Amino acid sequence: MAITYEHIKTCRQTGARLGKVHTPHGTFDTPAFMPVGTLATVKTMSPEELESMGAGMILSNTYHLWLRPGSDIVEEAGGLHKFMNWNGSILTDSGGFQVFSLSDLRKIKEEGVHFRNHISGEKLFLSPEKAMHIQNQLGADIMMAFDECPPYPAEHKYMKDSVERTSRWAERCLTAHKRPHDQGLFGIVQGGEYEDLRKQSARDLTSLDFPGYAIGGLSVGEPKDVMNRVLEYTTPLLPTDKPRYLMGVGSPDSLVDGALRGVDMFDCVLPTRIARNGTCMTSNGRLVVRNAKFARDFRPLDENCDCHTCRNYSRAYIRHLVKANETFGIRLTTYHNLYFLLNLMGQVREAIKEDRLGDFREEFFEQYGFNKPDAKNF
Amino acid sequence: MAITYEHIKTCRQTGARLGKVHTPHGTFDTPAFMPVGTLATVKTMSPEELESMGAGMILSNTYHLWLRPGSDIVEEAGGLHKFMNWNGSILTDSGGFQVFSLSDLRKIKEEGVHFRNHISGEKLFLSPEKAMHIQNQLGADIMMAFDECPPYPAEHKYMKDSVERTSRWAERCLTAHKRPHDQGLFGIVQGGEYEDLRKQSARDLTSLDFPGYAIGGLSVGEPKDVMNRVLEYTTPLLPTDKPRYLMGVGSPDSLVDGALRGVDMFDCVLPTRIARNGTCMTSNGRLVVRNAKFARDFRPLDENCDCHTCRNYSRAYIRHLVKANETFGIRLTTYHNLYFLLNLMGQVREAIKEDRLGDFREEFFEQYGFNKPDAKNF
Repeated sequence: MAITYEHIKTCRQTGARLGKVHTPHGTFDTPAFMPVGTLATVKTMSPEELESMGAGMILSNTYHLWLRPGSDIVEEAGGLHKFMNWNGSILTDSGGFQVFSLSDLRKIKEEGVHFRNHISGEKLFLSPEKAMHIQNQLGADIMMAFDECPPYPAEHKYMKDSVERTSRWAERCLTAHKRPHDQGLFGIVQGGEYEDLRKQSARDLTSLDFPGYAIGGLSVGEPKDVMNRVLEYTTPLLPTDKPRYLMGVGSPDSLVDGALRGVDMFDCVLPTRIARNGTCMTSNGRLVVRNAKFARDFRPLDENCDCHTCRNYSRAYIRHLVKANETFGIRLTTYHNLYFLLNLMGQVREAIKEDRLGDFREEFFEQYGFNKPDAKNF
Repeated sequence: MAITYEHIKTCRQTGARLGKVHTPHGTFDTPAFMPVGTLATVKTMSPEELESMGAGMILSNTYHLWLRPGSDIVEEAGGLHKFMNWNGSILTDSGGFQVFSLSDLRKIKEEGVHFRNHISGEKLFLSPEKAMHIQNQLGADIMMAFDECPPYPAEHKYMKDSVERTSRWAERCLTAHKRPHDQGLFGIVQGGEYEDLRKQSARDLTSLDFPGYAIGGLSVGEPKDVMNRVLEYTTPLLPTDKPRYLMGVGSPDSLVDGALRGVDMFDCVLPTRIARNGTCMTSNGRLVVRNAKFARDFRPLDENCDCHTCRNYSRAYIRHLVKANETFGIRLTTYHNLYFLLNLMGQVREAIKEDRLGDFREEFFEQYGFNKPDAKNF
């Protein structure tokens, strides 16, 4: 088995899981946050920087790499790890999400999806078999089954058809997957906010015995309490001896709330995307470093942070760089934001160890400002 | 004295100088190339990366820092070294070059220059006293006298007036300079392509006993043989116990040709600027990594280079990143180009040590392709 989950303990206060995921490229502690490297690079960061901040696994996007530079080129380079010089673990998504979020004129059929390239307009086709072939070429440690990520909200009838097709596609993925010895394929539980469909999806997929399971179709515009409710009834449907991955979630509050409901892995572009506008996550909440009030503020972004950025650079300097469109400024904010989330997951793991994740949640939400009536979304 | 020059030996084949420049922030070997960090950052690079590639001194621009973030903010931060977290040596130019190259509607008067901010259009005034005040606020190890950088070509009459005014301004700079104990002020020899005016300028400035001298007004559009001829008769006019700095020169051929004529220090934006378009300097000449022929080329940018980029990344990967506008791609090309020039200067120093800089020049020019009839400018 390419991927195994080692369960260490369950938080007595919340039921959250402390564990390890073992992959052909090393082991990482869970619950874990995975930085996103869409095009075989976590925007602005070097592999050494990712390693130094404690990233164990990163995510890269099948759809994007298929189009640029082409998965055949990545394969010829010796796979994604070698191509991008990252020796830690990598997860690739299936391309499904981008087909549904980026492409125009898509037509979903039983055999797969016809759509147009979001850059060139060229006609393309993606199917379970094709998504497996591309991901086998990329060679990530974890691959994802090709699924439909339905819109939110969607009618029950639409969602039921979609869930059933996704289950049939999952079976085809397992059959088409050529490297189960060194690439672990995860199934994706869909079903939107319908408990009966989540159950149906989880039952279908767990019967296929994937080495891990993702929860998809969340963080697509639904309110946070909907996401939490869905997680509450979905994670208990998943096997306890396999990792559980909540796709596309990376706001600090949702990471804690997801871990608390038994999720082991998360990914999101949020920390890197907001960093490029100079928006930072700090222990005292959101800090927009472009703001004029930081022009002469020589304190670090976060006075409670010991990351490379906060140990060496001031708000005034970073503000200057970001305002002048200097790349090094967004290197510094990107490093800090990723470190912040990786460090947050470390605190979450510590709290699980001490059976106090519920208390930690209250303290963290209070200090970050999530309990304020006008709290921003992250 | 803030800045001292230690002469080690003269190349018996060419007369080139091997030496060391001692500054309050360390010592670097000469001939040396200085990467340019216009806005208190060498574009895309971290201070650690600059250190790892062997940069001893970097340059930053007074004019740009005066406008953004403001030299008072840099002073409040504790000076440029602390503001940007660079503990090596720094040289700031005088702002003169930018006043003449970037600003509109400038009026040169005896007291100084009236002009407009190239960003906001705001009316500004820069004078020898003002340029010294700003550079004292920035706190670099080496400061430059405020000079006029005349256009090329310029009439003899215009140039003579300009040279004489620059000499009067140089005297005012010395008087206005408030930190001679920890900041060394260099005079700038002007005179364009007129030997009599270069002599007059050198005589005026050397009589003022600066701790170092720059040769200005070159690399402003004149042919390379004009630059070399001017250097040939100008460097012998300068004291042998002070460093000599050729401003704005950074093409590989001109670095070798300058060192060969007795220059100790160089700076230029060329290596970092072309890197941002994916153009690289290699031991076999210019390489435009965006080129389609590199799509499946898994060799390093330069097979003879041992820099971090060349040890870890392929042309195919870098091409992919540069074409997708991924910052990490230009980090890799920038690192390589700077390393290439710093390493070239190391080879130049080695050749001086062995009294064979003339031979080295021939070998290097041949391999790089400078002897080809269609040779590109760098």
